[in-house]
Amino acid sequence: MRMALKILLTNDDGPFSPGLAILREAVKDLGQVFTVVPETPKSATGLGLTLHKPVRVNKLKVDQEHIYLVSGTPSDVIYIAMNVVTGKPDLVVSGVNIGDNLSVQVILSSGTLGAVLQASIEGIPGVAFSASVDSPEELEEPEYRKFITRTSRIILESLLKTGFPEGVDALNVNFPPVITSEVVVARPARRRFSTAVVKRRDPQGRPYYWLYGQPVEVEKDTDVYAVLEDGKIAITPISLGMLFEHKVETIDTFLKEIKNRLEG
Amino acid sequence: MRMALKILLTNDDGPFSPGLAILREAVKDLGQVFTVVPETPKSATGLGLTLHKPVRVNKLKVDQEHIYLVSGTPSDVIYIAMNVVTGKPDLVVSGVNIGDNLSVQVILSSGTLGAVLQASIEGIPGVAFSASVDSPEELEEPEYRKFITRTSRIILESLLKTGFPEGVDALNVNFPPVITSEVVVARPARRRFSTAVVKRRDPQGRPYYWLYGQPVEVEKDTDVYAVLEDGKIAITPISLGMLFEHKVETIDTFLKEIKNRLEG
Repeated sequence: MRMALKILLTNDDGPFSPGLAILREAVKDLGQVFTVVPETPKSATGLGLTLHKPVRVNKLKVDQEHIYLVSGTPSDVIYIAMNVVTGKPDLVVSGVNIGDNLSVQVILSSGTLGAVLQASIEGIPGVAFSASVDSPEELEEPEYRKFITRTSRIILESLLKTGFPEGVDALNVNFPPVITSEVVVARPARRRFSTAVVKRRDPQGRPYYWLYGQPVEVEKDTDVYAVLEDGKIAITPISLGMLFEHKVETIDTFLKEIKNRLEG
Repeated sequence: MRMALKILLTNDDGPFSPGLAILREAVKDLGQVFTVVPETPKSATGLGLTLHKPVRVNKLKVDQEHIYLVSGTPSDVIYIAMNVVTGKPDLVVSGVNIGDNLSVQVILSSGTLGAVLQASIEGIPGVAFSASVDSPEELEEPEYRKFITRTSRIILESLLKTGFPEGVDALNVNFPPVITSEVVVARPARRRFSTAVVKRRDPQGRPYYWLYGQPVEVEKDTDVYAVLEDGKIAITPISLGMLFEHKVETIDTFLKEIKNRLEG
């Protein structure tokens, strides 16, 4: 018999997101589950850490389950969980996020992914789950909820059976807005949104700006296409070490130029 | 004659960092320079974006130069600069950060890098500069300041001459604490700090926690080693697309397992 797997459950939406309850339902029989989340929603915080001020940790009881609340980011959650709540977990699961986390652009700014990527720097495998829906109500629609719970569980069970894929640090799972049993491995699109800024004026007439994104045209053979056009479940493997793979020759001329000038 | 290069100068330390003035000095003759920075220091915000509240943009005049201040993160700066201040820049330079930005761990949570990586998602080449010093005073020490200014300029001039290396999205430059003309291309270490959390009590006796990092043992042949042990200038090329390169076979068994269960 093996020791119970220590699973850290987190998200970037805080304790009251229905996505958290869904993911807890999916993992509850797979091991010993610790739930540690940001106390307030922290979407789009990326891998940000709170270093300039201290964080608080509080405990909440919801549906007979203890939830630890951290006054910080999803990345803070990883370190607080490891050092204060549970010790190093065997697996981190994050989500289920309301809204997809598709494309390089979104992956690197997402708090849902931030928790998982921060964990992977610590050598802890992680899986982020996101659903391409617009509201908690859509996520909670009974048939859809059942689909997300069952599929998340199957993905994690499969992972525990086959082991984390070699050379992969984290997995990013996105569910389409429709119920399906089709699943693909997809590389991410580079961008999901074009950057837009809208100017408004406050009651004193002073300008302020909203940042928002407008979907860009979808590239074929990407995570965005798989989920939004094909209605499939997309799994994207993330390998942090590869960030810095490059053809040595491509940088050679540049390096030589610098050296000449520095020594000249 | 070519059109003046449109250069966006930013950082994660705000308008009063001496690193900003040093980098402005380094780039001022290379093109038309727009300075847009977070209005308050935003270290360790990674690629975080401000989407849940609006941002303000203010203008400040320092040493006859206009500086635009954004009430947000370094990533917000990129979008505000593009949409409100200058249009799409040709090049983004970020820094000079006080403190190194070495290792995958630090690169992905750094605000200095956050600006540059966010720009690279928009197809804008960027270079982040960081100096391995502990204080503004060290950065401003006249000989050291001259070293940083001259070398940053040489690196950028070389880049403009040879073009951005193929397949590379951004460059991460770290200066050692000592003056040198030795420069190497280095892959990043995975981690720079072990995670630590220290518990304190407030005057009411309630606990709070500080997150901080303690340097881990330095891997050879990494950016950390090059800068801190060898005292060399390290340049690390970053390729975002490679984050998602993986051997297809490694994920195959896992995918088959999921498919069997989903359809079973």
